[in-house]
Amino acid sequence: MTNMKPDTPLLDTVATPDKLRTLKASQLRQVADELRAEVISAVGTTGGHLGSGLGVVELTVALHYVFDTPNDRLVWDVGHQCYPHKILTGRRDRIRTLRQGGGLSGFTKRTESEYDPFGAAHSSTSISAALGFAVANKLSDNPGKAIAVIGDGSISAGMAYEAMNNAEQAGNRLVVILNDNDMSIAPPVGGLSAYLARLVSSGEYLGLRGLASKVTKKLSKRMHKAAGKAEEYARGMATGGTLFEELGFYYVGPIDGHNLDHLIPVLENVRDAKEGPVLIHVVTQKGKGYAPAENAADKYHGVQKFDVVTGAQVKGPPGPPKYQDVFGDTLAKLAETDERLCAITAAMPGGTGVDRFAKAHPDRAFDVGIAEQHAVTFAAGLAAQGMRPFCAIYSTFLQRAYDQVVHDVAIQNLPVRFAIDRAGLVGADGATHAGSFDVTYLSTLPNFVVMAAADEAELANMVYTAAVHDDGPIAVRYPRGSGTGVPIPEVLEKLPIGKGRIVREGKKVAILSLGTRLTEAEKAADMLEAKGLSTTVTDLRFAKPLDEELIRKLLATHEVAVTIEEAAIGGLGAHVLTLASDEGLIDAGLKLRTMRLPDRFQDQDKPDRQYDEAGLNAPDIVDTVLKALRWNESAKEADTRA
Amino acid sequence: MTNMKPDTPLLDTVATPDKLRTLKASQLRQVADELRAEVISAVGTTGGHLGSGLGVVELTVALHYVFDTPNDRLVWDVGHQCYPHKILTGRRDRIRTLRQGGGLSGFTKRTESEYDPFGAAHSSTSISAALGFAVANKLSDNPGKAIAVIGDGSISAGMAYEAMNNAEQAGNRLVVILNDNDMSIAPPVGGLSAYLARLVSSGEYLGLRGLASKVTKKLSKRMHKAAGKAEEYARGMATGGTLFEELGFYYVGPIDGHNLDHLIPVLENVRDAKEGPVLIHVVTQKGKGYAPAENAADKYHGVQKFDVVTGAQVKGPPGPPKYQDVFGDTLAKLAETDERLCAITAAMPGGTGVDRFAKAHPDRAFDVGIAEQHAVTFAAGLAAQGMRPFCAIYSTFLQRAYDQVVHDVAIQNLPVRFAIDRAGLVGADGATHAGSFDVTYLSTLPNFVVMAAADEAELANMVYTAAVHDDGPIAVRYPRGSGTGVPIPEVLEKLPIGKGRIVREGKKVAILSLGTRLTEAEKAADMLEAKGLSTTVTDLRFAKPLDEELIRKLLATHEVAVTIEEAAIGGLGAHVLTLASDEGLIDAGLKLRTMRLPDRFQDQDKPDRQYDEAGLNAPDIVDTVLKALRWNESAKEADTRA
Repeated sequence: MTNMKPDTPLLDTVATPDKLRTLKASQLRQVADELRAEVISAVGTTGGHLGSGLGVVELTVALHYVFDTPNDRLVWDVGHQCYPHKILTGRRDRIRTLRQGGGLSGFTKRTESEYDPFGAAHSSTSISAALGFAVANKLSDNPGKAIAVIGDGSISAGMAYEAMNNAEQAGNRLVVILNDNDMSIAPPVGGLSAYLARLVSSGEYLGLRGLASKVTKKLSKRMHKAAGKAEEYARGMATGGTLFEELGFYYVGPIDGHNLDHLIPVLENVRDAKEGPVLIHVVTQKGKGYAPAENAADKYHGVQKFDVVTGAQVKGPPGPPKYQDVFGDTLAKLAETDERLCAITAAMPGGTGVDRFAKAHPDRAFDVGIAEQHAVTFAAGLAAQGMRPFCAIYSTFLQRAYDQVVHDVAIQNLPVRFAIDRAGLVGADGATHAGSFDVTYLSTLPNFVVMAAADEAELANMVYTAAVHDDGPIAVRYPRGSGTGVPIPEVLEKLPIGKGRIVREGKKVAILSLGTRLTEAEKAADMLEAKGLSTTVTDLRFAKPLDEELIRKLLATHEVAVTIEEAAIGGLGAHVLTLASDEGLIDAGLKLRTMRLPDRFQDQDKPDRQYDEAGLNAPDIVDTVLKALRWNESAKEADTRA
Repeated sequence: MTNMKPDTPLLDTVATPDKLRTLKASQLRQVADELRAEVISAVGTTGGHLGSGLGVVELTVALHYVFDTPNDRLVWDVGHQCYPHKILTGRRDRIRTLRQGGGLSGFTKRTESEYDPFGAAHSSTSISAALGFAVANKLSDNPGKAIAVIGDGSISAGMAYEAMNNAEQAGNRLVVILNDNDMSIAPPVGGLSAYLARLVSSGEYLGLRGLASKVTKKLSKRMHKAAGKAEEYARGMATGGTLFEELGFYYVGPIDGHNLDHLIPVLENVRDAKEGPVLIHVVTQKGKGYAPAENAADKYHGVQKFDVVTGAQVKGPPGPPKYQDVFGDTLAKLAETDERLCAITAAMPGGTGVDRFAKAHPDRAFDVGIAEQHAVTFAAGLAAQGMRPFCAIYSTFLQRAYDQVVHDVAIQNLPVRFAIDRAGLVGADGATHAGSFDVTYLSTLPNFVVMAAADEAELANMVYTAAVHDDGPIAVRYPRGSGTGVPIPEVLEKLPIGKGRIVREGKKVAILSLGTRLTEAEKAADMLEAKGLSTTVTDLRFAKPLDEELIRKLLATHEVAVTIEEAAIGGLGAHVLTLASDEGLIDAGLKLRTMRLPDRFQDQDKPDRQYDEAGLNAPDIVDTVLKALRWNESAKEADTRA
């Protein structure tokens, strides 16, 4: 693969937006074309999010051209479409380090640039944040604007609606760009998406003159303040009342988001308007300008490195199945004979494996859009009516629905199952996507069962266990990526709730592992045995309820015990320590250590290096054990020699 | 106060909805009147939520009359308006035990009645849950309906929007009643509320005939399925497109919610409709039919026991200020000289003390409506633009914004402050309102400072500290109710971050207290001293960062140490144990115990009894210490005598 860097003579002269703003508007088409070529070339080299960025190339150029960034605050929702923005805001020299250790983040990030006033990665935060900027400016009489760019998928999430409902107070300092590409990651769902389609299909795009007059007319509507309240009431009704106007916006659009001749004057008009807030409905095409992306079903949402000419993505060697697919396939199989089983995803059918379930059982698969809160309480309603729903949500996104987990599921002790994907470190997506906290925030809840799979075979058994166990909430967590290669049993096993298993028995050291760090625990055991330290390895399986009997026995019969989990403080380790303290097991002295994720947000990197940084690899386990034993290697060696 | 039970001859004959359904429609007015009198009488005796229930008396009667409850699933949003529903569904005999230990819950509760298919207490869950019931019925060909009753305040929350956006799949099995009383707890805010006002003000209520024809017309619109997609697109546009129709509902209304002659036929029509989902916009008056409530600003939202004739509420003796007011007043005072300070509440200005701040600084007080997610990210935006926002949110409601706390505040290390009210047990509101998990779910986050105030003076100092400390996120938690009566310092003190204080010094026992259990810790110390056990009491102040130096010293110099906090497992105790384990302090034996909330959801009761049940009172501390010391009282006494 020999991806040549494209020729970009004009782009080469605009390292930052102030340079861009010295160009004539007529030159922007060329800037956009060169920018698009540079994005394709860069992502071809690094992999990452491609389709979203290609869809907003013209919008990115237009926004930086019209608005006074960074003084005007430009907030990209999610941030995965920000590669063109990064290239235009002084980061082009590092664009081929995207998503790599020490390189540029794949999202916006405050510490990276003053042009990133607000970091993102989870969806639907941009209007709230922009409103914060706008209101702060209003309070200090700063005329600066705040511009949120949000996709049609993201705007379907509850917090976007909450923000829109509060937007009116920002007046003309707030501009929301609705980037409607009829696509988040999966095809769109829900009433809002149908509504947007109606808006777009309701007429031709307005020509330039029509647009300008429409915008002007709209934005002068409230110039005579005297009309006051009555006019306020009339406004929503009189304009035919689009949903956005009913919530308090001036709605402008739909506009062709690839036509700079339309974008620039509309944005200028809105920028100079006395009234607001304005929502500009811009229609774009995900993957625009790169045929392989335009033609792909997922518009190259997230890609591996690829050949720019052919579009062929570099594939790794075939390996064990992904955890997400094992989940989806297992549940689909079980659902053949259990009509209660159903699966829910919040706009991530592919990422969660729910697509596989949906293929087999379309009636029982629900993609609710980016709506984790609804997903969980919807599941609770299904469960209350006798179904057995599996909510498949990434660990980090389940945070969106924590109250629903507590209030609607745990308190009511309903048999909702949580298939928690991307638990633990996630590599290139970095801190915002890491699933670090679920063991802690779920295990603190009464009634909850929290399991973690050590490999894909155990995941299959856990899915089965969750399907057939007849009681309250159950969570199964498992990591991003592929399994260890163990065969998946033909006949699945119902695991006893709250019981771990002994993987190998030793006498001096006990390693209590939760989840996929088990592989490292076994490696560590080998290393310890090589030092003459007989080591027990257990796969605890459950963070809650703890296998108290097993833990008591391990603590009583081993000189040192170490827990390990891919989770932050407050999880398994804390629960084991609390048990040991509650029962007075620590009174007589206990060499018990807990290994967990560090108390800091870890940046993106290759997974192995993230584990190294976290101190969760086999040598770290050995180190922890030896330190607990106050083992002095050289002394021991001397001893042996003696 | 001599509240006589009202005469209710007709109500006496309808213990359950099946009895109600044997009456003639013309008799329902009398049922409603008697039901209203019974609600007033009962709440006069018990205290509780009054205004909301009075507003839905007719609606409650009409719903149970028209729908086949409990087979049709009636889901009350929040549930504080469900007292009339409880009276009509077999619980009248216990209605005067509302909100008391062992009595009826003040909200709907699944374990209490088959007529409560889904429990509630937090807002905005009803449409999601009802959609779950409806879809489960659809999957099993069960013709049962699901009816969600949701207020205009609740429907402004994000999860309601997420649910509406997904509602279309339920078809005619889902009915949403929008109970529009222009009031949640505080006056309404936001674009949606203005929109509803426009709908209501846009015309007279339709007469009976007009209503029926409008409903019929609407619900037959899609009868010719052949029209298909094109008609689908046309629908929203052609009908003038109310917000709800744009999201996929048939909209019916507004209807006078106190007029049974209108309610009954409309509900019957909707019940029998082939199309759906339908949203019925019902206008009611909070506090309806009880003059003292109708005339009060808060419509008697939540009341103490009161005299039915005069409306006079029983007030307790004057006492120390409430924590919420100390917060509001302190912040208001600080804001006089610090223009960065602002306060945000999610529809609870009174409950959080933000009303006091707003009185002094209206420009810098933000009531965002029931929108915790937006509140937190809006605060993050304000902070990113140089403000110093305080989000005042109850502990249990902050769960709604957990992802925003993690993703927008903690990861970006922004100086947002969280004033976490109702931390710990909350008495009559029970498990759904308890603030049990915040110490755990916040202390696990990197970058976070988590404080808990031991009394109102310390709260004032902590608010000051949070205001002036120039770094990332800070949470201050404090309980429901009144302070201990200590004077609030004239000059506030900046507390050193991560430092506790020694309240009294002893030698044998150390009590490490976080928050207001300090009073009990001091009592326990007295009791222990009386037994000859010299006791140190510390007010740790910080769950994160821990005062490691102090803790190390305490553990090293005392025979037994006990942590105590009003929080679930995974909080302070877990962090102290983890420190002790990390540093090997437990290796040589450590009598360290952690006292915390029990691993179960505690029902409503008087606070003292809740603490007893939780085992967090002084005798429990003494007990824990003695058990740790393996203290044998009789043996010791014998010893002393010898």
